Amino acid sequence: MNIFQYPVQAEWPALQQRAAQQQAQDVEQRVQQIFEDVRQRGDAALLYYARQFDGADLTSGLRVGAEELAAAVTQVPAELQTAIRQAHANILRFHQAQIPQEERVETMPGVTCWRRALPVQRVGLYIPGGTAPLFSTLLMLGVPARLAGCPEIVLCTPPQKDGQVNPIILFTAQLLGISTIVKAGGAQAVAALSGGTESVPAVDKIFGPGNRYVTAAKQLATRYGVAIDMPAGPSEVLVIADESANPAFVAADLLSQAEHGPDSQVMLLSDSIYILEQTKAEVERQLRELPRAEVAAQALQESRAILLRTPEEMLYFSNQYAPEHLILAVKNPEQLAEGVTNAGSVFLGHLTPEAVGDYASGTNHTLPTNGYARNYSGVSLDSFLKKITFQRLTSEGLLNVGPVVETMAEAEGLRAHARAVTLRLEALAGGEE
Amino acid sequence: MNIFQYPVQAEWPALQQRAAQQQAQDVEQRVQQIFEDVRQRGDAALLYYARQFDGADLTSGLRVGAEELAAAVTQVPAELQTAIRQAHANILRFHQAQIPQEERVETMPGVTCWRRALPVQRVGLYIPGGTAPLFSTLLMLGVPARLAGCPEIVLCTPPQKDGQVNPIILFTAQLLGISTIVKAGGAQAVAALSGGTESVPAVDKIFGPGNRYVTAAKQLATRYGVAIDMPAGPSEVLVIADESANPAFVAADLLSQAEHGPDSQVMLLSDSIYILEQTKAEVERQLRELPRAEVAAQALQESRAILLRTPEEMLYFSNQYAPEHLILAVKNPEQLAEGVTNAGSVFLGHLTPEAVGDYASGTNHTLPTNGYARNYSGVSLDSFLKKITFQRLTSEGLLNVGPVVETMAEAEGLRAHARAVTLRLEALAGGEE
Repeated sequence: MNIFQYPVQAEWPALQQRAAQQQAQDVEQRVQQIFEDVRQRGDAALLYYARQFDGADLTSGLRVGAEELAAAVTQVPAELQTAIRQAHANILRFHQAQIPQEERVETMPGVTCWRRALPVQRVGLYIPGGTAPLFSTLLMLGVPARLAGCPEIVLCTPPQKDGQVNPIILFTAQLLGISTIVKAGGAQAVAALSGGTESVPAVDKIFGPGNRYVTAAKQLATRYGVAIDMPAGPSEVLVIADESANPAFVAADLLSQAEHGPDSQVMLLSDSIYILEQTKAEVERQLRELPRAEVAAQALQESRAILLRTPEEMLYFSNQYAPEHLILAVKNPEQLAEGVTNAGSVFLGHLTPEAVGDYASGTNHTLPTNGYARNYSGVSLDSFLKKITFQRLTSEGLLNVGPVVETMAEAEGLRAHARAVTLRLEALAGGEE
Repeated sequence: MNIFQYPVQAEWPALQQRAAQQQAQDVEQRVQQIFEDVRQRGDAALLYYARQFDGADLTSGLRVGAEELAAAVTQVPAELQTAIRQAHANILRFHQAQIPQEERVETMPGVTCWRRALPVQRVGLYIPGGTAPLFSTLLMLGVPARLAGCPEIVLCTPPQKDGQVNPIILFTAQLLGISTIVKAGGAQAVAALSGGTESVPAVDKIFGPGNRYVTAAKQLATRYGVAIDMPAGPSEVLVIADESANPAFVAADLLSQAEHGPDSQVMLLSDSIYILEQTKAEVERQLRELPRAEVAAQALQESRAILLRTPEEMLYFSNQYAPEHLILAVKNPEQLAEGVTNAGSVFLGHLTPEAVGDYASGTNHTLPTNGYARNYSGVSLDSFLKKITFQRLTSEGLLNVGPVVETMAEAEGLRAHARAVTLRLEALAGGEE
């Protein structure tokens, strides 16, 4: 970790800079080829890529069958099952509070308007596989998708070498009540979701994380009219720690970000040089004990520990940076939290590590990265809903609002708009309906 | 209008097809050049394009001054002022009902999570100018922007040839309390908003309609980390009319869509051939009386009037098409409305023309087109807010959820995540904190 002491504001932009995301052109081209292939050959292409990229021979088909699903439960340790069930309950509880109320508003007498939340009809959830199956992400996407009532939920995840899907993923899918599970990963899975194949239904919106091929594929999918959850980037944390912070706790939080990947962004702000130095020492000590030490060490090379003067200054810096995760390891976190304007998810106090939000507190862990916390929200129930507006006028309503519309439409030079009102007003005056 | 009688379902996709949007490559290249120019030369580039594209010599600067703003009021007829004020009040009332409540949820004892809605800090509103100044769109974007509390609102709109901004636009801006008004249009305005210039603050999110240059520019802006309201396409309406419908009313509604532009999409479904034929005749009759008859006639060439068998079939067709505007000109519109799954905004009954939603009923008229009603909502208060999640654990909370997190993190191979919890649990056990 590199410590910067009292940088002047002119130096902040450089310190807030994220590592540039080169979207290698060859990645884009390769993804485009895969898209075209999947769109032309459908399942045959998916089977081909499963062999090529996942080393899996899917002779028994691309879809997970009922037997494979049932067998999964027996392979997941009871303790893990209980943990996943508890996380599920917490995530469900938090997202249930997001169910919107439908309220009718009479904007003028006889003019009634309302908004109805309806589920996106067909959604695709992409869950990376491999050695670390992200069943927690499946919870984070599956819970709101089910709660929203999306009629069609398609889960895509790459097969293991033996052609099976990781049993923890399957257990979680079962818990969620998701039964359309496709053994496909990478750009080919996204291509299949965006256009459909014999085994994969096309969807309206695609969710989920992935490597740069998946990210590029999701971007490409938007050109085919499919929506995506949000633009993706490496995960990141910013910790604001005052002198009340425990350097061992702060170090553990920084490391849990760093272990995600070599491009993880790790940032520490403090108004105490003691905390910065102690945390740095703790990071180095704890790093040695980690199985993913090499990955974390690489991420830490780009990490920054910055000494600033006041809580206000730290907050200002953080709001400009707009971190995905913000930890307020300070004495009065509620007070500081009032000033947060840009962040994905905020963790208050010394006993709220980011890890609890990643897994089980109830908040969603699919969050905006790369500064997108300025203009995007994390995934929530809203992400699986569309809000449709409705309106109905009585004759009284038309008499009230009609003349307003006629005047405005004429001023915008849209005569037919005015006529649509005039004709009806004339009919009302004539006693017609 | 072309009438299609009882098409079999295999023919539906062709009937639901929208005219392909060719994004001409030369448009994209031109927009890219403009972006680079504005990013390099800033205001100088904006002044240059104002001369070239708007024929305006902006010697007095790019920003609308206090005097020009004050003078605008005197140039807007009193009747129009009253109409705009009434529309403003209705739109405000409807959007006020969208203010989200902050609710704290205790997902487990000692684990408290909540979501706070905060305004996007810097937003840009683009309003096309020219002969038909879209002051109604300024209302539709400005009301929720102000209501959300966005601290910085930048309005861009092209100058008239005399270097002034249309007074109705300025009157509306004043009513909204928007004072940062830039005389810039087209791709150059979007470029300025996405990167900033001497006179134009950079923003986090850009809203508003425009021609294909503006659309291409908004798409390009997303590559610079700026969010946009939604993908754009030509405006469209689908009317479902049963035998209770008034052909003159239906025709007027179809025409008010058709007059928007030659590429407007107009669709009529009915289970009554009488209604289809009468409406077709009415369209031809009313068309002659319109100042924009030529535009409307062009749009009508691609319009479709389709005879189907039942209300259910019409609804099914409409949901597949996912229209921006859906008019239910039927006897029991509330009942039919229950079955709508994909639409932007829905107008119920014979006395609710689309025009009222375009101007003054209170609902927003910035809506998803081109089938995006499947996966996007129209503009609302939400569009100007981000939802940030917060969480705080007590020691009881950490004792409750901690072991769940440890188990799940280990199963995902993320040891540092587990350690961030373990360290704290150990400290609690040791009586620290």
